[in-house]
Amino acid sequence: MLEKLKAEVCRANLNLVRKGLVIETWGNASGVDRERGLMVIKPSGVPYEELNWQDMVIVDFENKVVDGSFRPSSDTPTHAVLYKHFDCIGGIAHTHSAHAAAWAQACRAVPVYGTTHADHLACAIPCTGVMPDDRIAGDYEVETGRQILDVFQAQKLNPAEVQMVLVACHGPFTWGKSAAQAVYNSRILEELCRTALLTEQVNGAANPMKAALIQKHYERKHGKNAYYGQR
Amino acid sequence: MLEKLKAEVCRANLNLVRKGLVIETWGNASGVDRERGLMVIKPSGVPYEELNWQDMVIVDFENKVVDGSFRPSSDTPTHAVLYKHFDCIGGIAHTHSAHAAAWAQACRAVPVYGTTHADHLACAIPCTGVMPDDRIAGDYEVETGRQILDVFQAQKLNPAEVQMVLVACHGPFTWGKSAAQAVYNSRILEELCRTALLTEQVNGAANPMKAALIQKHYERKHGKNAYYGQR
Amino acid sequence: MLEKLKAEVCRANLNLVRKGLVIETWGNASGVDRERGLMVIKPSGVPYEELNWQDMVIVDFENKVVDGSFRPSSDTPTHAVLYKHFDCIGGIAHTHSAHAAAWAQACRAVPVYGTTHADHLACAIPCTGVMPDDRIAGDYEVETGRQILDVFQAQKLNPAEVQMVLVACHGPFTWGKSAAQAVYNSRILEELCRTALLTEQVNGAANPMKAALIQKHYERKHGKNAYYGQR
Amino acid sequence: MLEKLKAEVCRANLNLVRKGLVIETWGNASGVDRERGLMVIKPSGVPYEELNWQDMVIVDFENKVVDGSFRPSSDTPTHAVLYKHFDCIGGIAHTHSAHAAAWAQACRAVPVYGTTHADHLACAIPCTGVMPDDRIAGDYEVETGRQILDVFQAQKLNPAEVQMVLVACHGPFTWGKSAAQAVYNSRILEELCRTALLTEQVNGAANPMKAALIQKHYERKHGKNAYYGQR
Repeated sequence: MLEKLKAEVCRANLNLVRKGLVIETWGNASGVDRERGLMVIKPSGVPYEELNWQDMVIVDFENKVVDGSFRPSSDTPTHAVLYKHFDCIGGIAHTHSAHAAAWAQACRAVPVYGTTHADHLACAIPCTGVMPDDRIAGDYEVETGRQILDVFQAQKLNPAEVQMVLVACHGPFTWGKSAAQAVYNSRILEELCRTALLTEQVNGAANPMKAALIQKHYERKHGKNAYYGQR
Repeated sequence: MLEKLKAEVCRANLNLVRKGLVIETWGNASGVDRERGLMVIKPSGVPYEELNWQDMVIVDFENKVVDGSFRPSSDTPTHAVLYKHFDCIGGIAHTHSAHAAAWAQACRAVPVYGTTHADHLACAIPCTGVMPDDRIAGDYEVETGRQILDVFQAQKLNPAEVQMVLVACHGPFTWGKSAAQAVYNSRILEELCRTALLTEQVNGAANPMKAALIQKHYERKHGKNAYYGQR
Repeated sequence: MLEKLKAEVCRANLNLVRKGLVIETWGNASGVDRERGLMVIKPSGVPYEELNWQDMVIVDFENKVVDGSFRPSSDTPTHAVLYKHFDCIGGIAHTHSAHAAAWAQACRAVPVYGTTHADHLACAIPCTGVMPDDRIAGDYEVETGRQILDVFQAQKLNPAEVQMVLVACHGPFTWGKSAAQAVYNSRILEELCRTALLTEQVNGAANPMKAALIQKHYERKHGKNAYYGQR
Repeated sequence: MLEKLKAEVCRANLNLVRKGLVIETWGNASGVDRERGLMVIKPSGVPYEELNWQDMVIVDFENKVVDGSFRPSSDTPTHAVLYKHFDCIGGIAHTHSAHAAAWAQACRAVPVYGTTHADHLACAIPCTGVMPDDRIAGDYEVETGRQILDVFQAQKLNPAEVQMVLVACHGPFTWGKSAAQAVYNSRILEELCRTALLTEQVNGAANPMKAALIQKHYERKHGKNAYYGQR
């Protein structure tokens, strides 16, 4: 069942390690089958070296395991919330990559310091609020998803355009059209976070890039008249 | 004698190098046979490239060599103190990995800045006091062990829950159920130290994460109702 | 057509990745045939893993594609401006390598802190001004080239001696006698930027090196009586 | 002639690259034959990938080439000064490794922040003064050697115990009983410089380690009653 998606999701998970974004079991990636309303996700706490595509777990959007001999990632309910509310997305990745985790732990959105950032998104990388105690006491992983929805709603962000977020005190979630694109965005995010910190270290009074440059770079890659890449 | 343990301990030592935690001869790992009251440890100053499992040294808890043609690691008496007093542990690792050594040299405990940290321990990573002169003049490596016992006693820490410590001005010691788990904890520690420093660099006024979140993350992985991983 | 140059340029592009200067599609390198007035450049947005020398695109200095089945790099017009005005150069490279991008995003020229820098150029690594809005609204990539020409003119720099520049808020461009030398200079630049930041971190009041030492090191490698390397 | 030494010196030079201490042609290592009063050194500016042991150059202490088809490293006269005045040493290495170069460019000696440092030397890693203009105008590379002799004399350092130095605004020189040990010391130095900077970043008010601990660690490895390693 969903063999092709399982293989895709397994490869995405392994790429998190290969790209240096995950050590030990600190991450997970998933993919979705929209027609069936099912997602495929990494099993919880299984070492990456031992991961086979057959080990991937199929879960519905209410977090019920539909297929698989392992328990799914403990972050599964967060993935489910995102799939339910962001219907443009086909894959999700979650890591604790060092620089993205550092900005998340510092509870700071990442300013647009340069064109590298604007090539990917036209605003600061959003950071959620710190989760209130009543939510922590509730269904924690579902609430993590709600924290993400909240910041997107408050800042009127479009998840098709802004494909990454920092969960305060925790770490990054990224998504995209597929699990592979979500992993790609995890890598972009880590590098943007690293370069933003370096920028502030080179110039403690560094300013975000001006709006005209942000718009120009974002549009040339993602706008109606985009001319980056092959069409 | 203790061939299986020797092989395990040798592999653990080699993994310290493979995981980027040790250069040259800057580290050692050991494992214990509780029934026999013996530990197996790396020989002192032997280059990792030349290490065979047969070279591992068997030592009792009074630091007497029971088997082996090499002298054991000069840190052996510190390992012995830990095995004697922390009877829950089966393996120990010691490194000078850069970020853990930096926090140790800075004589600072590592605050819990995020869930990555809380997934592994529910308090700051403890740092011993600086060793008093009379202890330095005494049996130095035994006293290093005592410095560790002191901070665990003073802070009422449980070595089964807190499996890592920074020795002030020196570097980290980690432990676990086996030599392999001790090495795993050395890697976790290095990454937590790296991310904590990055967090302070991103936000000079960063606050430790609130208690409810610390508890939640620690419990979901290590508590009675833990739901992380496979059971 | 221009097969040898295509192979050279392809290799230079792949070396950007191998040397750790480019991730994903964040860079490009080109080479020029001065007699024909044509340049060879990487296709836009094509993953490095899939790059063959046959995919390189031939473009004239007015940015018209002369040969190739792909669209050329979106930065092609910037390369063209540099080839037109800096007639001493045979190859160009553009990256978003982290430390060079950080100095560019911080809008700072890199001071000459040591002999490593002076071995390669005898002045600070120049940084352009931030592009004015009217230029952004115009032919953006051509204007990026003009920003570079402006800083070289204002500071009376010789592109045969100063083979690197930071474009403010964007990232580095480097050049040389060939695409390979441009890539070499990208690597040198990244390392100079990294060491300069580290220098300021070690000593917040670090001073640029004195003029006599700068001159001595530059001359011993590049002066009339240079005695570095083989002749 | 001196074939074994040439092979040794070539291997040492290649290890500078393998250990990540040198990129491109930014370094050199040499070894000495004390009986013949000759040293073997890397040729100047030859890429490491193309280096064969037969390319090593034999030079006497007056910098006269005795054997070899290449010109010797431009830093040869600095090596010669050290061999002439430090008669305990058998090999020398020079790099521009990033952290050591940063401390040199910052013109700061590296404080003893921890036992890792004290395991190798019992004092701060010395940094020369900035070279006066008249020396720069003179025989520059010889004067670089004199700057090193000056700081060793002023601080009454023993080159058999302190096997590393930072040349202000330039970078590190290290030495040892052989070219291989000099390279080993280059690696130790780079790691000590990295950890010292991290220590200051973790704690801006970090203090050097107290004298009793420095002495204890240095003696246990290098003192009369040393008990580290195999005897």
